[in-house]
This record gives sequence, C-alpha cells and structure tokens, in this order.
Amino acid sequence: MEEVLAPLREAVRKQGDLLHGMREQGSPEADISKAVAELKARKRILEAKELALQPKDDTVDRSKMEDTLKRRFFYDQAFAIYGGVSGLYDFGPVGCALKNNILQTWRQHFIQEEQILEIDCTMLTPENVLKTSGHVDKFADYMVKDAKTGECFRADHLLKAHLKKLISDDKCSVEKADEMEDVITQMDNYSQQELADLFAKYNVKSPSTGNGLTPPTPFNLMFQTSIGPAGNMLGYLRPETAQGMFLNFKRLLEFNQGKLPFGAAQIGNSFRNEISPRSGLIRVREFTMAEIEHFVDPTEKVHPKFSNVADLEMLLYSSKAQTSGQSAHIMRLGDAVEQGVINNSVLGYFIGRIYLYLIKVGLSKEKVRFRQHMENEMAHYACDCWDAEAKTSYGWIEIVGCADRSCYDLTCHSRATKVPLVAEKHLKEPKVVNVVQFEPNKGAIGKVHKKDAKAILEFLAICDECYITDQEKLLTEKGEFTFETEGKTFSLTKDMVSVKRIQKTLHVEEIVPNVIEPSFGIGRIMHCIFEHSFGVRAGDEQRTFFSFPATVAPFKCSVLPLSQKEEFMPFVWELSEALTRNGVSHKVDDSSGSIGRRYARTDEIGVAFGITIDFDTVNKTPHTATLRDRDSMTQIRAEVNELPGIVRDLAGGILTWAEVEKKYPIFGGQETVKKE
Amino acid sequence: MEEVLAPLREAVRKQGDLLHGMREQGSPEADISKAVAELKARKRILEAKELALQPKDDTVDRSKMEDTLKRRFFYDQAFAIYGGVSGLYDFGPVGCALKNNILQTWRQHFIQEEQILEIDCTMLTPENVLKTSGHVDKFADYMVKDAKTGECFRADHLLKAHLKKLISDDKCSVEKADEMEDVITQMDNYSQQELADLFAKYNVKSPSTGNGLTPPTPFNLMFQTSIGPAGNMLGYLRPETAQGMFLNFKRLLEFNQGKLPFGAAQIGNSFRNEISPRSGLIRVREFTMAEIEHFVDPTEKVHPKFSNVADLEMLLYSSKAQTSGQSAHIMRLGDAVEQGVINNSVLGYFIGRIYLYLIKVGLSKEKVRFRQHMENEMAHYACDCWDAEAKTSYGWIEIVGCADRSCYDLTCHSRATKVPLVAEKHLKEPKVVNVVQFEPNKGAIGKVHKKDAKAILEFLAICDECYITDQEKLLTEKGEFTFETEGKTFSLTKDMVSVKRIQKTLHVEEIVPNVIEPSFGIGRIMHCIFEHSFGVRAGDEQRTFFSFPATVAPFKCSVLPLSQKEEFMPFVWELSEALTRNGVSHKVDDSSGSIGRRYARTDEIGVAFGITIDFDTVNKTPHTATLRDRDSMTQIRAEVNELPGIVRDLAGGILTWAEVEKKYPIFGGQETVKKE
Repeated sequence: MEEVLAPLREAVRKQGDLLHGMREQGSPEADISKAVAELKARKRILEAKELALQPKDDTVDRSKMEDTLKRRFFYDQAFAIYGGVSGLYDFGPVGCALKNNILQTWRQHFIQEEQILEIDCTMLTPENVLKTSGHVDKFADYMVKDAKTGECFRADHLLKAHLKKLISDDKCSVEKADEMEDVITQMDNYSQQELADLFAKYNVKSPSTGNGLTPPTPFNLMFQTSIGPAGNMLGYLRPETAQGMFLNFKRLLEFNQGKLPFGAAQIGNSFRNEISPRSGLIRVREFTMAEIEHFVDPTEKVHPKFSNVADLEMLLYSSKAQTSGQSAHIMRLGDAVEQGVINNSVLGYFIGRIYLYLIKVGLSKEKVRFRQHMENEMAHYACDCWDAEAKTSYGWIEIVGCADRSCYDLTCHSRATKVPLVAEKHLKEPKVVNVVQFEPNKGAIGKVHKKDAKAILEFLAICDECYITDQEKLLTEKGEFTFETEGKTFSLTKDMVSVKRIQKTLHVEEIVPNVIEPSFGIGRIMHCIFEHSFGVRAGDEQRTFFSFPATVAPFKCSVLPLSQKEEFMPFVWELSEALTRNGVSHKVDDSSGSIGRRYARTDEIGVAFGITIDFDTVNKTPHTATLRDRDSMTQIRAEVNELPGIVRDLAGGILTWAEVEKKYPIFGGQETVKKE
Repeated sequence: MEEVLAPLREAVRKQGDLLHGMREQGSPEADISKAVAELKARKRILEAKELALQPKDDTVDRSKMEDTLKRRFFYDQAFAIYGGVSGLYDFGPVGCALKNNILQTWRQHFIQEEQILEIDCTMLTPENVLKTSGHVDKFADYMVKDAKTGECFRADHLLKAHLKKLISDDKCSVEKADEMEDVITQMDNYSQQELADLFAKYNVKSPSTGNGLTPPTPFNLMFQTSIGPAGNMLGYLRPETAQGMFLNFKRLLEFNQGKLPFGAAQIGNSFRNEISPRSGLIRVREFTMAEIEHFVDPTEKVHPKFSNVADLEMLLYSSKAQTSGQSAHIMRLGDAVEQGVINNSVLGYFIGRIYLYLIKVGLSKEKVRFRQHMENEMAHYACDCWDAEAKTSYGWIEIVGCADRSCYDLTCHSRATKVPLVAEKHLKEPKVVNVVQFEPNKGAIGKVHKKDAKAILEFLAICDECYITDQEKLLTEKGEFTFETEGKTFSLTKDMVSVKRIQKTLHVEEIVPNVIEPSFGIGRIMHCIFEHSFGVRAGDEQRTFFSFPATVAPFKCSVLPLSQKEEFMPFVWELSEALTRNGVSHKVDDSSGSIGRRYARTDEIGVAFGITIDFDTVNKTPHTATLRDRDSMTQIRAEVNELPGIVRDLAGGILTWAEVEKKYPIFGGQETVKKE
C-alpha cells in the first residue's frame, strides 16, 4: 500500500517545499495562492488514494443505512406532504431522542465538568451586529442562474461538474484535460470576474434546460427578515451562535466576578441559506450547533487541567505533515503541545476533551482525527485552528472546529459600539505607563451642550490613544473636532477639551482576552454516529442495527411481553412504571410479532437493552424476566424488580454488560412455555 | 369583601343571562358580540376589584425583583451593547440553567411519563403550510403609523391609551366618558373600518410627535423570509410548533404501529413580530414553547389514567361561573369531568397533569387556576378550551392553553395536500356502507395520458364522495372534467372514467383523529416562577432571594470555603469533583467576601443548598462540613464525602430537608476558628 502512495506523498512534499521556498522569498500573493491550490489538489489525490486502499469491510452501505433511517423515522425531509423543502429536515421520535441525549451528554461533558457559563441568545439578529462580524459583507457563495427559468446553481459546483463531464469525454485531448484539471484544482481561488470568464470559455449551460446562464454573482447565505413593524430594521437569522457570547462578554465577566479565564457556551439553531443543500444532514439550511467561547488572558494560555488529557493518544494531522506528504499519525497529546505542534495547552486541553466527547457519543476511535489548518486556510484572525474530522462514506468531513481566534471578535465589537470589552488584570508588580487622555472642561461643555454634557463626557472617557492623537491634531489645526455618540453629532472646541499626557502607575491592567472556540455541528456528528454504529447481522442482510452507546441510545430499553395474554400485562405495567421512576427511557412493544422480529425492530432503532416477559415470568416465583444486550445478543435472567435498576446503571455507565453477565445466570431458554 | 363585590357579581350575572337569552332567541351576530364585549368588560371590573381587595403582602415588589433579575443576569435585553432590540431577550447563565431545568422537568413529567413521541421540526416554514393553517391570512394585529416619521403603533393599544387620557381629563363630561368607556369595552370587536372611524372621531395623533396617523391596516405578525437562492419560495418563521406535529402525523402514526391514541410533542422556539412588545418575558418576539398534540379517536375520549388525577382539587373558573358573576372555585377534578364542567376525561387528565407540572416547577397552588374559554372566545374549531392562568403583578395571565381542537388541523392539511391524514380503526362488528368511487378505464387513460396515467389513477383513488359527485355531474353534462395533480392539468372524458356506487362491508374504518393540545409558553411560566418565588429576608430589605424548588434551581448547591487559605482548597476541589460526578450543578465561590455576603449572593440566584468548608473541616477528622438550606437558613453538619450524595438526593426529590435535619446534627457554630 505504501508503495502505491509513495510517489503521491513525494508529489505533495515537493509542492510543500516549493511553497515554503516561495514564502521565504516573498513571492507575489497570486503565485503563492496558486501554489497553495496545487498543494491542496495533490493532498486531495493522496487522500483519495489512501481511502480507496482501505479494506472494504470498513465502509458502510450508505443507501441501506439511509433506508433504515427513513423507514424508522430517525429524520425525514421537512414538509414532505407539501412536496418537501430541500435542506430542511424534521427529526422523528428516534432521531430527536438521540439528538437530545447527544446534547445532554455535551452539557455534562463540557458545561458541568468545566463549570462553563451557558447562555441562550436570540436567533433573530439585527443587521449592525452581523455587519461588524463581517457576515453581511463576506458570508456568500457565487451563484449563476438559468437565464430563462431562473433556476439557481452554485457556481463552483456547476463549473466543476461541467469540466468533469468534458474531461471524461473520449475525444478530450490530454492537454485539454490537464488544463481543465488545473481549473478544478484552483476552484476556491477564483474571483467573480475569473469565474465569469471560465463560464464563458467553457460554454457552461444550465444542466436541466440547456439554457444560457447569468454571470456569477455573490449570494449572501444568511436568511434576511425585518424586525418590528416599521420595516426599517433589517435582521437576519444568526449564521452561528458565537456572536451572542461576544456581545454578552461584559455581563459574563461580571457574573464570573471579573476573573479570567472563563468559558461561555451556547446550544441552539443557526441558519444558512445554502444554494444547493445536499448530502443529508451534512449540508442543511437549519441546524443545531453547540459552541464554547473560552476567554483567556493571552499571556497565560496554560490550562491547569491539561495533565488530565496529556496521555491521550490520537490521530493528529499537523499542518507540517500535510505539506510534506505524510499521513495523519498517532501522537500523545502532551508531546504535541510540548513540541509546539499544538500552539498551547489550552487549545490542547480542548482538543483532548473534544476527542473524549466524540468517543463517548459513539464515534470510532480509528475514524476520528484532528487536522490542523494550514497557514493559508486559517481565517486571518486565528492563530491556530484544528478541525476534528470523521471518516465517512463522503471521505473525511469536518465535525468540530477548534480555533484560537485571538482577540479578533471582541476588538471588532468594541470598536463598533465604543463599549470597552476588556478584563482587568491585577498586576503583581505595579507598572508605570504613559497615558494620553482628553482633559474636558466640564463647565464649558455644560454651558454649550446642556443635558448632552453627560453623554459627551462619557464618550471622551473611553477614547483610545490613537483616536485622541488624531483629534488633537484637528484641535490644533482647526480649533475643533466633531464626533457622533448616541445618535447625535457634537462639536467640541479648544476651550472645552484639551489633551493631556501623563505617567500613571498601574496596579491594574486592561486586557482584551483571547478566545479559544470549539464549535460543534450536531447534525454532522449525528451523521457520523450513524455511519460508525450501523451494522448488519451476520447471515441476515435484512437485519440492520445501530450499536449506539447506551448513554446516547434513543431508548435505553424495550419491554416485550412474549404473549399478548392478559396475565402478561401487569408485568409490563410494573416494569414500565419502575423504568420511568428510574429515569430510563423505554419502549413497550406488545404487538403480536414474533419475539425475534420484535428484537430486530428494536435493534433497528438502536435500543440498547431488551427485557422480555416470558412464561417463566408469569408462572414462577420469584418473578424473573430476561435482559438482552443488543450488541452481543446474549441474555441473562434476573428478578423483575431488580431489572430497572440494572438497566439504569448500564445506561449511566456505572455497570458494564460483562459485569452483568458475571453476576446473573445466562439465559438459554425458558422452562415453561404456557400458562401453568 | 364579598359585600363590595356583590353588586359587581350581580352586574356580570345579569349580562350573562341577557346574552344567554339573546342566543336562545337567535339575535343578530352584531348584537351578540356587543353583549359579549359588555360581559367581558363587567368581568374585568369584577376581577380587578377582587385583585385590589387581596391582602397586600400577597403582591410582589416587581421593580425590586426585576432589579435582581437584571443585576444577576437571569436575562437581559438582547444586543444591549448595540442599543438593544425590543422584544428580544438573552438568558444569562442563571436564567438559562433555570430554563433548561424547567424543560428537562417537562420532558420527564410529560414525554417520559406518558411515552409521548417527541419530534424536532424546522422553524423555517414555507408559505403554503401557513396558508393552510390560516396564519398567512389571519395572524395579524391592526397598526397605525406616524404619517411623518413612520413610527408604528398597535391600533387598539394606542386608541385605548388616548381615550383613557381623555376620560381622566377633569373637563370630560359624564356622558362623554361613558361613551368612551363603551368604546374601550368593545375594543376587540371593531373591524378595520370601524377602527379607522374611531381614530378620526377622537382625533388620535402620534403620542411621540403629535403628527397625524395613517389609517389602521392589518400587520401580519409572522417574520417573513425567502428560502433558497431563487427568491421564489416565500417562507416564515413558525408562529407555533404545533404545525410540525400535524404535518408528520402519518409517520408518527406509523411509528406507533398504526394505533391510536398517541401523543406527539415538540419543544422549540417560535416567533411573533409583535408591533409593541412589552411586559418583559410576557410579550416577546422570539420565545420557547413546549406543545403536545394528543391524537385520539373522537368516539373514545376517555383517558385510562384519569383516576390518577381525579382526586386533585384545584381552582376552576368555568364558563358558567364567569357568565354568572361567580369567582373561580376549588373543585375536585373527578367531579368536574363527571358533572360535564370539563368536556371529557382526556382533557381532564391533561388539566390535572398540567397543574401538577406547574406546582412542581415552583408556582404557588393558590395562584394557579384553570379558566374555561367562554363560547364566544373559543376558536371556531375548538370544542372545549381551558387556560392555565397564574396570578401575577400584571393580574391573571395565561401561561398554558389546553384545547380540544377536534379534527380541524388534520382535515385542513389533508384537504390542501390530498394526503389522507387518517387512522384505521378495526371494527368489532363489520359494517355495511354505501361507497361512491371512480371506476377508471385504465386502457383508455393510458392510451391518451401515457406516463402520466399512474399519477391520474392515484388521484382518482383518493377523491372523496363530495368531489366525485360534482365531477359526475360534469361528466353527464359536458362529457368531461378537468383537475390538477402534481403540478399538471388533466382532462378525463366519459370513456376514461365512470362513477360507481357499491355497498361495502367494512372491517376497518378510517377516522380523522381529534387533537387535544396542551401548549406551554416557557417564558411566561418563568416569569410566574420568578414572581411566586421572589422574597426579601425579614429585617433586611437588601437581601432578596428566589425560593426555586431544588428540581429547577439553576444551581443545586454552592461550595464556599470560609477562608482563602491554601489548606481549604483540596476540600473545594474534592467536593466540586464529587458533585460533578453525582450530576449536581454547583457554583464555587472562593472570593474573599464574608460568608454572610456570599450566602446572600447565592440566595439571590436561588441556589438551593450551600456547603461551607470551615476551620473544623480542615482541623478535625473525620472531615465534616456544613450544609445550609436556602429557605429555612438552617444548617446541618455531615462528613465531606457524604454531602454530594445528600445534595443529589435532595435535588432529585428523594430526600426532604426535614429528613436531613432529623438525621444529622444541626450546626450552631464551629469549634475551631483557625488552623490548628
């Protein structure tokens, strides 16, 4: 296998070295981004080959899995009886229970364990907030339209599909094919004009009608609406939950008694008006996210609990490995931080915790990796970024992002609102600093501006050095300067304000915290759990099952009376009531199907355990029933009143099935087969 | 007190009788609705007087309460640093934890206890769905605008405020005042034109500028957006979660193996673009709801578990009591159903369960009542409707609706989509019925319509008797009829289709289920919990607290080291870790404030219990610490490793504080006061 891959690895390494050299020489940006695209393309080829060489039993039969998901109403396209809307999905009882358990586990694993401050902000967001965050201007994809029908296509998807079709044509020359491959490689780098030129050059038409297409235009992916009746407050549905944490930073800091570090978190829906939603839960228009913003002193990026995760070993795919043609490889987390592969131990701690969470909710260890963003991929404000990726039938897909966003977001909002978003840090040693500040003449200001004086003084008090120096120049040159605050414009003249330079001994320093942001796409995680836990019983292609961990299984237990006879019912009720009292979600199936069929039906929706009430339950005292483990399909027999407690402890992770098997008799068959 | 109320009661009774008489005589609708409005007005006066005569210590100091809520960040106006958006609120850590616990308790109390099918549907909803449900056409309030500035006002609110101001003028004559009181009374009944005339007659101007106003126009309260890039699919944010359950009815029925009755439930956000949001969490633009749709055979509205709640006694305010000037009075639920005060035992069961839920999450028994809708209040499709109301500083407000919506919703969606939303009922006795159906000539249809034949046959198979009879007439008169299906129009002629009348023996009957809908406004319930649990410590006006039940308390427990000395810290960590392991949410406060101050601070956010690590903890073995109960403020002393389990059981309702007090020594004061 490595033999086949060696030349591909070499190709990546060469391109990585080339890029490195270009960066050192300060080559033009355009050349660098071309080299980057080529590097990515070579990486993609390497990775595709790696995946293709995997043993086949490792891949899931997706259409079979999706059939089970749809048939048992894990989820389905929303508004189906009205024809459906693409990119919108409803979760049925099984999917909803699974999702709730995934989120509840998230709350325990992160919020409770780390004492994170959870908040719950509105999805409706006014435009100015998203203007500041950059989403209004930049959160867009290029789109083309069928010139006659108006049907819309995502430009890059369409162009790529068109070129692939041309390449696959027998008549396509090698040179032409190479040229087009090159275009596909560069796809992410094209400007609006370049895309337009390519559409013209390759004569791309609408695939559904053959009509001409309008030139590519950027399409903003946010859902727009109008807040309030006046129609003058534009709003959007939030594209991420993060902004709510930044906007409430001051109140959260106060709640934490002014101390850093602390984490804030939010679970909730976000919205993206995808041009062409696809791949089931992977790319949808409304989705649930769980995000943490961990605010930390930039000079103290050390996590006190890092040692708890330092010994974890996991697949890391560093930026360096990617540019040198290596695969992801297993590394001890502690070593990765020590060697600087991961920037700091706060980021390292979260990577470890994310890994533990993903395994807990049912992802396979060997199908999870953390991939570092390469220098050119990283948003300009981030200083390090690692994605948790899962191996699926779609290839490796991103399911959790974990970025060190530095102080970018707080700084932006602070600048836009003039509200300082800072924390106070008590200095061990007092520090002498030069301070520039406005020196207002309160009397003069009050005389002219009357009741606005208060707002003016407040404004003057929060200006930063850079702004003050600029205004000082205006005061000197023109004798006055003008500014806006609280929606009004004011002019201040020389007699009202001057600029003072002093030395101050600081005991307290104001710092803008850095932010580490682990961001979870819940729908994507669910998709991966489905793929990693889907199976087919040996010898029976029809018997599919999901081996969800008991913690997240939609129902912990089924209750199955072997017969519909009346005397079985009191046991059903007793068990159901006791399970409810123990907080164990369960499903009674007293239909007439054979017990094998009913086991199959509960396996299909991943019910972790099954209690069967048989004739021995009814006939013999003490009353006992059987308990079956979904994954091993073995059964034990225990007293009816013990069973709810056993299932509760199994579901809570206090007890393992191996322990249960040791303690209780394995069940072979019942002794009585009808009412005695 | 009854002396003062007697004439008011009499006034209501008289009007109730008058209305009753008018109905019997079949008076014109306009007169009846006038009489209804007058009845409501008299009821309002009676109720206001009743409330005014309540003892004063029963009312909460709302501004003091709101100060605590804001200061401790239970919730706050959203986007505050950008100036805020009215009607949008963010929940901070305390409010969010409380809200999560309220919802978690709801899940246990309803979904798990009743084995309800929880689903999770999208908030984005295409227009056609909400057209069918009536929201596009009818979900609106009247609005007027300042003719110059464009400022918007809700017409009824503005007119009422204007008239009240005129009435309060000393120069206003008694006749004029009576006339205007009459207008206020009738406010809910006016048409658009009548409102316009009243605005003109009373010369209403903009209260902020004195400018003229535009005539009242209906303003739809849904947030509109556009789904997908083409701009041709209008969508809205859902105004309620209920529609998702109706649209998924078929799949849910299938999941329940075709059997009735079953309940579906959904927890999630809904949106209403209020013209003038107000009263904090009571009237907002984005809010969380929890709704149940219980689908039941209309001929079998009997709940098997009703006996579990039949003995509950609660304040019921029947329609009859309201029209006869009586107060709400305490009634046994079983009697209310037996006497027909409540329509059926399914509705009765849910009323009982709602009551138990509200008490469990912290509402006061004596401040909760169920009020039946009067005949004229009820939506035309509902056959009985009871609101759970809570007494607050705003008066009695609706917090849960519980309506029997009959088969209205399923019928509407079925008609609009041509998808039958019915359940099959196995008949004990076979039944002979007359059936009218299309008899298609498949050959002839196939010949003309080719590959569309399948769609045509499907369409013909689902048509109802009424439609078939209509088309039969067309076939006879014109020899053909035309219809639309799957977006295409087809004509069928006499030779392609005929109408057949046969007798059929049915073993299975198709029924449209009725729906009982308990619908919870979570924000409103939170507001009521705040009011019913807010208190001020005797003798100290500054020490406010919330006596939340431990089940929903935002944090179950605080951990407070008496000193910041290093030797206290291991106990803090040990306790914190053990509490986390036991799933007990808690808050460590190791700040330097006095222990009394720190107790006060945790009481303010309603932390249920407090563990204090004192010098005896550190100095003596076995290590013990104190546990304090927020409500009684008494303390006991127990071993450190026992405490997490005690708090877990207290929070889980397995243990009461009285039991704890009996078992462990009451704490008076510590024996050592510094490190020995």
